[in-house]
Amino acid sequence: MASNSFGQVFRVTTWGESHGPRIGCVVDGVPPRIPISEDEIQHWMDRRRPGTSRYTTQRREPDRVSIVSGWFEGMTTGTPLAMTVENVDQRSRDYDDLSSVWRPGHADYTYDVKYGIRDWRGSGRASARETAMRVAAGAVARKVLGETIVIRGAVVQIGPHAIDRSAWDWEETGRNPFWCPDCAMASRWADHLDSVRKEGSSAGAVIEIRASGVPAGLGSPVYGKLDSDLAAAMMSINAVKGVEIGDGFALASAPGTEAADEMRSGGNGPQFLSNRAGGILGGISTGEELIVRFAVKPTSSIFHERRTVTNEGQDTTVRVTGRHDPCVGIRAVPVGEAMMACVLADHLLRHKAQCG
Amino acid sequence: MASNSFGQVFRVTTWGESHGPRIGCVVDGVPPRIPISEDEIQHWMDRRRPGTSRYTTQRREPDRVSIVSGWFEGMTTGTPLAMTVENVDQRSRDYDDLSSVWRPGHADYTYDVKYGIRDWRGSGRASARETAMRVAAGAVARKVLGETIVIRGAVVQIGPHAIDRSAWDWEETGRNPFWCPDCAMASRWADHLDSVRKEGSSAGAVIEIRASGVPAGLGSPVYGKLDSDLAAAMMSINAVKGVEIGDGFALASAPGTEAADEMRSGGNGPQFLSNRAGGILGGISTGEELIVRFAVKPTSSIFHERRTVTNEGQDTTVRVTGRHDPCVGIRAVPVGEAMMACVLADHLLRHKAQCG
Amino acid sequence: MASNSFGQVFRVTTWGESHGPRIGCVVDGVPPRIPISEDEIQHWMDRRRPGTSRYTTQRREPDRVSIVSGWFEGMTTGTPLAMTVENVDQRSRDYDDLSSVWRPGHADYTYDVKYGIRDWRGSGRASARETAMRVAAGAVARKVLGETIVIRGAVVQIGPHAIDRSAWDWEETGRNPFWCPDCAMASRWADHLDSVRKEGSSAGAVIEIRASGVPAGLGSPVYGKLDSDLAAAMMSINAVKGVEIGDGFALASAPGTEAADEMRSGGNGPQFLSNRAGGILGGISTGEELIVRFAVKPTSSIFHERRTVTNEGQDTTVRVTGRHDPCVGIRAVPVGEAMMACVLADHLLRHKAQCG
Amino acid sequence: MASNSFGQVFRVTTWGESHGPRIGCVVDGVPPRIPISEDEIQHWMDRRRPGTSRYTTQRREPDRVSIVSGWFEGMTTGTPLAMTVENVDQRSRDYDDLSSVWRPGHADYTYDVKYGIRDWRGSGRASARETAMRVAAGAVARKVLGETIVIRGAVVQIGPHAIDRSAWDWEETGRNPFWCPDCAMASRWADHLDSVRKEGSSAGAVIEIRASGVPAGLGSPVYGKLDSDLAAAMMSINAVKGVEIGDGFALASAPGTEAADEMRSGGNGPQFLSNRAGGILGGISTGEELIVRFAVKPTSSIFHERRTVTNEGQDTTVRVTGRHDPCVGIRAVPVGEAMMACVLADHLLRHKAQCG
Repeated sequence: MASNSFGQVFRVTTWGESHGPRIGCVVDGVPPRIPISEDEIQHWMDRRRPGTSRYTTQRREPDRVSIVSGWFEGMTTGTPLAMTVENVDQRSRDYDDLSSVWRPGHADYTYDVKYGIRDWRGSGRASARETAMRVAAGAVARKVLGETIVIRGAVVQIGPHAIDRSAWDWEETGRNPFWCPDCAMASRWADHLDSVRKEGSSAGAVIEIRASGVPAGLGSPVYGKLDSDLAAAMMSINAVKGVEIGDGFALASAPGTEAADEMRSGGNGPQFLSNRAGGILGGISTGEELIVRFAVKPTSSIFHERRTVTNEGQDTTVRVTGRHDPCVGIRAVPVGEAMMACVLADHLLRHKAQCG
Repeated sequence: MASNSFGQVFRVTTWGESHGPRIGCVVDGVPPRIPISEDEIQHWMDRRRPGTSRYTTQRREPDRVSIVSGWFEGMTTGTPLAMTVENVDQRSRDYDDLSSVWRPGHADYTYDVKYGIRDWRGSGRASARETAMRVAAGAVARKVLGETIVIRGAVVQIGPHAIDRSAWDWEETGRNPFWCPDCAMASRWADHLDSVRKEGSSAGAVIEIRASGVPAGLGSPVYGKLDSDLAAAMMSINAVKGVEIGDGFALASAPGTEAADEMRSGGNGPQFLSNRAGGILGGISTGEELIVRFAVKPTSSIFHERRTVTNEGQDTTVRVTGRHDPCVGIRAVPVGEAMMACVLADHLLRHKAQCG
Repeated sequence: MASNSFGQVFRVTTWGESHGPRIGCVVDGVPPRIPISEDEIQHWMDRRRPGTSRYTTQRREPDRVSIVSGWFEGMTTGTPLAMTVENVDQRSRDYDDLSSVWRPGHADYTYDVKYGIRDWRGSGRASARETAMRVAAGAVARKVLGETIVIRGAVVQIGPHAIDRSAWDWEETGRNPFWCPDCAMASRWADHLDSVRKEGSSAGAVIEIRASGVPAGLGSPVYGKLDSDLAAAMMSINAVKGVEIGDGFALASAPGTEAADEMRSGGNGPQFLSNRAGGILGGISTGEELIVRFAVKPTSSIFHERRTVTNEGQDTTVRVTGRHDPCVGIRAVPVGEAMMACVLADHLLRHKAQCG
Repeated sequence: MASNSFGQVFRVTTWGESHGPRIGCVVDGVPPRIPISEDEIQHWMDRRRPGTSRYTTQRREPDRVSIVSGWFEGMTTGTPLAMTVENVDQRSRDYDDLSSVWRPGHADYTYDVKYGIRDWRGSGRASARETAMRVAAGAVARKVLGETIVIRGAVVQIGPHAIDRSAWDWEETGRNPFWCPDCAMASRWADHLDSVRKEGSSAGAVIEIRASGVPAGLGSPVYGKLDSDLAAAMMSINAVKGVEIGDGFALASAPGTEAADEMRSGGNGPQFLSNRAGGILGGISTGEELIVRFAVKPTSSIFHERRTVTNEGQDTTVRVTGRHDPCVGIRAVPVGEAMMACVLADHLLRHKAQCG
C-alpha cells in the first residue's frame, strides 16, 4: 500500500527512480510565508552531491533543484511545495548485465519477489538516489525550524576505526571529505578507504546526527515518540542496520546508578547534569541536545565475485563494476541530517497543534 | 496530535494509565472469521504479567483480559476488537511523595513540560503498564499470521553480561525467569541481579526477537520499510534506547567482502548462505529469519538518592521506593514479541492489499 | 482495513456493538488542561438517549458515560481520553428470528457478504447505537472549541413536510420532541408520525446543523477541505443518503448573478451580504455561519411484510417487530451536532499546526 | 497540515498551481505489473481538456500527460507513479487587476485569511486546473479496477433544466458537448447557456456518476464507509455544494414502505428489486449499480459588477473578464468519474487487505 510519504503535519512524499528522467518530492503542510529560495535548498543538496571526492561515486550529477509549486514571490504559500531534480548522468548500460541477476546485499531479489517486476537500471527505486529528495525536503524543514535549532552530522566510525570523541571538533567536519570531527582519524580513514578500494572491497560506517536548540516538549507518546519516529526515519535510509539514541546500546551494560541523567535547577528551567539519554525521555525532548547514531553497512556493490542466483533460479556469480561509493556511509550524513530536520519540523507542528 | 495508534491496515490503539480503573486497546482491521478465545490471549498476557519471579516487580496484577467487541460466537467479526484489563493492585499512595518531583530518567519532567499536567500516580500514561495492551494486541496479530510464522524472544544480555551465542537453546528460555537461551548465563544473571538489588541499583538488557516462517516480500519501501517499522515499534517500548537488525552495528566494521549474504538456488527459491542482514533487504523480507535486537536502559527507579528538581524549580533529591523491576528488560521480551507480531500482521495485510 | 477512526489531530476511534457488554470510544489528541466532567458529557448524551418520547425507540438505555483514561483532577491530560457506556436494555431474543434473514434496507446482507460473519443481535456494529459514542466525543470536541463557537441542530423536514424557514425559532427546538424550529410544523409532524406508526411504516427526515462563531480560515485544501470532511462525517451517520452545504442542490439552478455572496468591509474584516455558500469557500471557512444539511432515509425496520432472501439464498418475507424509531432522523440531530463539533475541533487544531 | 493526498492503500497526492510551470500528482500504492500507457491516460485527460467546445473555457491547454516514475517497460512497478502536465497557456496578466481584490464566490478571501499569502494568478492552487491531475490518477485507478467495472458520468441538470430520466441514453452523452444523456435536453441547454453567456452570467449543474460491475462488499464501516468516502471525494471538487447517493434527498420524503429495496434470490446471489439505495447499504456496496450525484454552483467569475472588498479592506466592485467556463459543471463530469474510480480502487485494495 501507499508508503512513500512520511510525517503527519509536515509530510514528505518522494517519487522517482535512479534512471528515470527525474526524481522529485512533495512537501505538504509547510507553514505559509516562509521566505525560501532554490539557492538555499541547493546549498544542502550540494553537500550530498556525488562526485565531490574520490571517496564517493564518480557519477556526475549536478543535482540542481527546482521548486515547481507552493512558492510565490519567494515565499511558501502553504500549498504543496513540489521540487524536482533532473537525472543527468545515467548510464543504464552499466546495468545491462545485472538485469537478470540478484546482487547479494542489494534489494534486487526482494523487489522481484514482492512486485514481480523490477526496474533494474541503477537499482531503480531502491537506489540511494532517492535520498537526494530527502535532502531537499530537509532544507525546507530547516527553514520551518528556524535558526535556533541547529542540526549537524558527522561520521564517527568507518570500518573498524572509530574516532576519539575527546578530539571532536565540529569545524573539522568541513575540512575533510569524510565529515570526520577528529582530524587525526580523517587521515587514517583516507588510508583505510584507499586500501579498501584497491582490494575492490567496501566499508561500513557509523553516523551521528545532533540537534541543538530543540525545545523541551516535542514528541508524541506513545506511538509517535520522538525517538520512535527518529528510529523509523534513520532506519529508512538505504543500508542502515541500526539506530541508537544517546548512549544507546552502551546503556544496556551501564549500572542503574549511572544511567539516568540527574537534574539541577537552572536559569531557564531545569538543567541536566549529563545527557546519556540523548535528549529524549518518555519519547519527548528534554531540551538537551538530541543525539542519534546509525550504522551503515558496507556498500554491497564490490569488485569481487560473489555467489548468487539469476532471476530464473540458476546459480551464478556476480562481480559488480561501475561507479560506486566505497563507503556509502559518508554521503549518508546530509541525509541523516535531513531526516532529523523533517522529523523535528513535523513534531514542532504536531506539538503546536495539540499543546500550542 | 493523535499518536496512540500504530499500524495501517492492522491498527492498534491503546489507552489507559497505570492507576486508572482499567487499560484497554482497540485492534482495528482484524480479518474476520478468525477463531480466537480470551484464553488464547491470556496465554500471552501471562508471560508478561508482573510478580512472577523475584526479578520482576511485586505489583500483583492478574491482568485478566476481556474481549468487549468485535467478537461473535468465538470468532473475529472484522469490526473493532476491543479489549480491557482491570487495574487491581494500584497503590497510589506509594507515589504521593513523587507528585511534585521529577524523577531522573523518567518521563516526569517531559510530560509536565509538554502537557502542563501529569498523572503522577505510577507514571500515568508513561508507565510500562501500557505495554500489557500491546501484548493483548500481539496475541491477535499472531492469530492473523497463522502458525507457520513463529515469533520468539530472548534476553541476550543483562548488564555487562552477554550470552554465549553458540550455547543458544530456545527450550532454555522457558526454564529460567530471564528468557535466557544460554543455561550457564542464566545463573550468572541471577547472581548479578541479586547483587544489583542488594545495592538498590538496577540493570539494563539487550533483547532479541526472531520471527521464522516469514514469507519473502513483506515490507513497503521507502517509508514503510519493514525494518523502519520494526525500529519504530521497538523504540516505542518504554526504556528502549537502541534497535538493530541482523548484525546491526557490527556491520559497520565488517569488510564489504563479508557483509552481504550470498545466495544459491534451493528447492523453494533462492537460499541465503548466511543471514547477516537479519532477513531484510531494501526494507523487504527475504524469507530468512527476521532478527531484531533492542537495548533497554536500566530501570530508572532506584533506591539511591539522586539529584533532581521539583516541579516548582527547587533543587532536591529523590530516592524511589516502592515495587520496581530491577531489570525492566526482562518483561520487555513478550512486549517485543508482540510488537514484532503486530508489525508483521500489518505488513502481511498491506502486502495482500497491493500485491496479493 | 482499519477504518473506525476519524479526524487527524483530534481523532476519535469508536468500538462496540449493539448487544455487546458495552460500547466505547478513544478520543486522541485532546489538548491538555481542559476542565471537563462526566456530567458535562452526560448532558449531551441525554439529548440523544432513546426512550425519551413516543417518537423514538422504547429501548431503555440510561447511556451513562464513564471517563476511564486521559483525565486527572478534573482535567484532560493530553493522553487518550477513553469513555465507555454500558449496554443495559439488550433484548437479543427480539432478533432471534432475524439471524438468518437479510432485512431490506439494512446492512445485514452487505456485512455478511463482506465479512462472511455477522453479529445479528440488534444489527451489531451497524446499529445506530454506535452513534452514542460520537455524541460523547462531540462533547469533548465542544470543550476544545470553547464557548464562542455554538453548534446547534434542527430537523427541517419529516416525510414530505418541510418547515417554514421564516418561522425559524431556535428556542422552539427545545420545546417539542422533534428538534423542530417551527412551532406550527411540530404539531403537524406529531400527527404525521402518529399515522405513520399506526400504518406500521416509518418516515425520513432532513436535518440541519449550524455552527456560529467559527473563525475564518479553517479547512485544509484540497483533500481536507472543511466541506469535504463535513460531508464524510455526516454521510457516515447511519441512514444518511445526502449532504449539502449552504444552499446546496438549490445552487445548481440559481443564476450566476445570484449565487455568489457579495462582500462589504465591516468592523471585523469583510462581511458577507448573504450566506448561500454556507460559510465555506474553497474548502475554507469564511467566518459566516456554517450550514450543513443531511437527508435521512426512513427507518428500514417496519411492520410490513417485505420480500427478501435468507442467508442461505431462499426467498422469504420479513416483517420486523421490536422497538424501533419511527423516524431515525430525529435522534440524528445530536449526532450531527457531534460530528460537526469533532470536524471543527480537528480543523481548529490542524490550522494551529500549520498556520497558528 | 498535510492535506493534499486522498485514499489509504491507493493514495493520490496532487501538487501545482494554475500558473506555475507545471502540475503533477503521485499515485502511490498502485499494484505492480499493470500494463498502462501514456496514451491510455491521455484518453481520459482529453475528455476534461478545456477549449473543446464553446461552452467551456477558451484557455488552450494540450494537457499532455507524462509518466515520470513508477513505470518500466510499459507496466507499473508498484513504486510511486508520478505524472506531470505542463501549463502552457497561462495569461497571468489577465489576473493583474485581481491581485488585491477578493472575487465573490471564489476562494480568494479564504486563502488570504488562512495563509496570509495567495498566488492570485489564475486562482493558484484553488483553480480547477488541479482537477486535471485527478483525471490522470483516475485513469490509473480504472486500470486497477479492470474492465468489468464501468464508470460513467452525465450532466443531469443545467441551471433549472433537468433531464427527462426516462429518455436516458448513455450513447447520447458522447454526441453533445454537455455529457447530456437526454437528446432533447441537450439542445435546450445549448440555448440556455448561449443566453447565459450573452447576459455575462453563468449556470450551475447537477452531475451523476454511475459505476456498474462493482462487487458487493466494498466499503469499510464505520468511518471509511463507501458513501462517506464518495461524499468526501465529490465534495472536494471545486464548486461542489451537495452530494447524494441513490435517491438521496428524495428518500427523506419517501414513505418507509417504499424506501427500502426488496430482494429476491438470483442466479448470482441475491438480487435487488429496485436500487433506491444507490448500491450502498451500511456503507458497503450491494453489487447494484453505484449512483452518486453532486451539485455544482454556477461559475463565480461573471461579467457583472459585484460588490466586494480589497485585501486592504476597502469597499470596491469587481467584474471578472478573461476566459471562463459558463458552466463549470460540464467539465466536472470526467473529474467526478475519476474520483469515483480512485475511491473504488482504494476500497478494492482495502477490501483485499482485510477480507481478501
